[in-house]
Amino acid sequence: MTRVTAQLSVSLDGCYAGPRHTGDGNWMESAEAAAFFRVTRWATEATAWRERQGFDGGTHDADSEIVAEHFAAAGAYVMGRRMADGGEVPWGDEPPFRAPVFVVTHRPRETLVSGGGTSFTYVTDGLTSAVEQARAAAGGRDVAVAGGGSLVRQVLAAGLLDELELHVVPVVLGTGLRLLDAGLGLGEKEGIELVPTRVVHSPDVTHIRYAVTGRAPLLLDDRGRGGGRTTVG
Amino acid sequence: MTRVTAQLSVSLDGCYAGPRHTGDGNWMESAEAAAFFRVTRWATEATAWRERQGFDGGTHDADSEIVAEHFAAAGAYVMGRRMADGGEVPWGDEPPFRAPVFVVTHRPRETLVSGGGTSFTYVTDGLTSAVEQARAAAGGRDVAVAGGGSLVRQVLAAGLLDELELHVVPVVLGTGLRLLDAGLGLGEKEGIELVPTRVVHSPDVTHIRYAVTGRAPLLLDDRGRGGGRTTVG
Repeated sequence: MTRVTAQLSVSLDGCYAGPRHTGDGNWMESAEAAAFFRVTRWATEATAWRERQGFDGGTHDADSEIVAEHFAAAGAYVMGRRMADGGEVPWGDEPPFRAPVFVVTHRPRETLVSGGGTSFTYVTDGLTSAVEQARAAAGGRDVAVAGGGSLVRQVLAAGLLDELELHVVPVVLGTGLRLLDAGLGLGEKEGIELVPTRVVHSPDVTHIRYAVTGRAPLLLDDRGRGGGRTTVG
Repeated sequence: MTRVTAQLSVSLDGCYAGPRHTGDGNWMESAEAAAFFRVTRWATEATAWRERQGFDGGTHDADSEIVAEHFAAAGAYVMGRRMADGGEVPWGDEPPFRAPVFVVTHRPRETLVSGGGTSFTYVTDGLTSAVEQARAAAGGRDVAVAGGGSLVRQVLAAGLLDELELHVVPVVLGTGLRLLDAGLGLGEKEGIELVPTRVVHSPDVTHIRYAVTGRAPLLLDDRGRGGGRTTVG
């Protein structure tokens, strides 16, 4: 059955990039880029990621297998407009997706068919529509929300996400673009509950996979007193 | 050798409690409390925590062993004033620490000797002094920064922390008191690097232990191109 999944590399404090780059400077010289490079470095060093980009070398290890697994599981992708725009040049003629990509955007554009099985379809009638179009195109495999982080957050907030895998990188940034923040629009005393279903770890990154249960109220409890006091006088 | 350690229960988005309770209402009815209860529930259900509080029952499992390990490792504690004030009544005559506790505060107060080996010494000349006094009292065991979260953050920011264990609870809060935030005072393109040294996980919580390496610049890289292109035309 097709599930809607997302995976993202984040710092230990939950940022997928540094503070948003604004103004005229070069993005590559921004704090946003420096932090993004740091949290995604484990992937760029993985054989499975490099193969998809057309690069030699890298390390074939448990981290690389995680990358390979995500590529293999995805029958179609949903992507934010900013990520799609930013990737168009570096991904070149054979983007790494090798599957249909549905880009959530306000700007109509003809479908772009690239090499290697990747196509970009521009969806202007909203996130839910993009997810449904991807589901129809996924051939029974998963719909992967490719990012960026704000799109993953929107999919989670909308209750559309079945599975979230975070690649937690052992660096603290203090500030930056957070995947999970007030933009989720949770109520007071409300959380989104998840169940961890797998943990894989290496010295470079801890991969935690969660099944998303959904919104639930945050409740008080008796702090263990229900079990009764024992010997304290 | 005595190390300075800290451990804290946090949500998947890094909050140890809900948004700070302000105003006149009852803290127990606040969003701060509701989230704090949620992220610490795994501990209150653990036998090792309950024993220290004088409560029967609970579950003796891997999570409980983590709690027991932390209590056993600590030869002395450093604690924030707010946590010490808040705990004074519920901890009662036999606080769970069973070791000297050094409270960082601006208000001088005589040392309070409680039952079971716990004492509270009020340190008014700063965090570093409190850590050093705790180190001298720890008898070769660890100095544990008991919390709250803002004190743990200060100890990390000051470069005094050797080890941090996060108990990551599978709930997303969106907003709340974050352990790791801009209060760390990191520079632009600077992070605090860590090395994960152990991961223990259960359906309720993922315990990730880190050795703190320290501040380091965030660097760019060639995004894998150094390995050379292979077959992309």
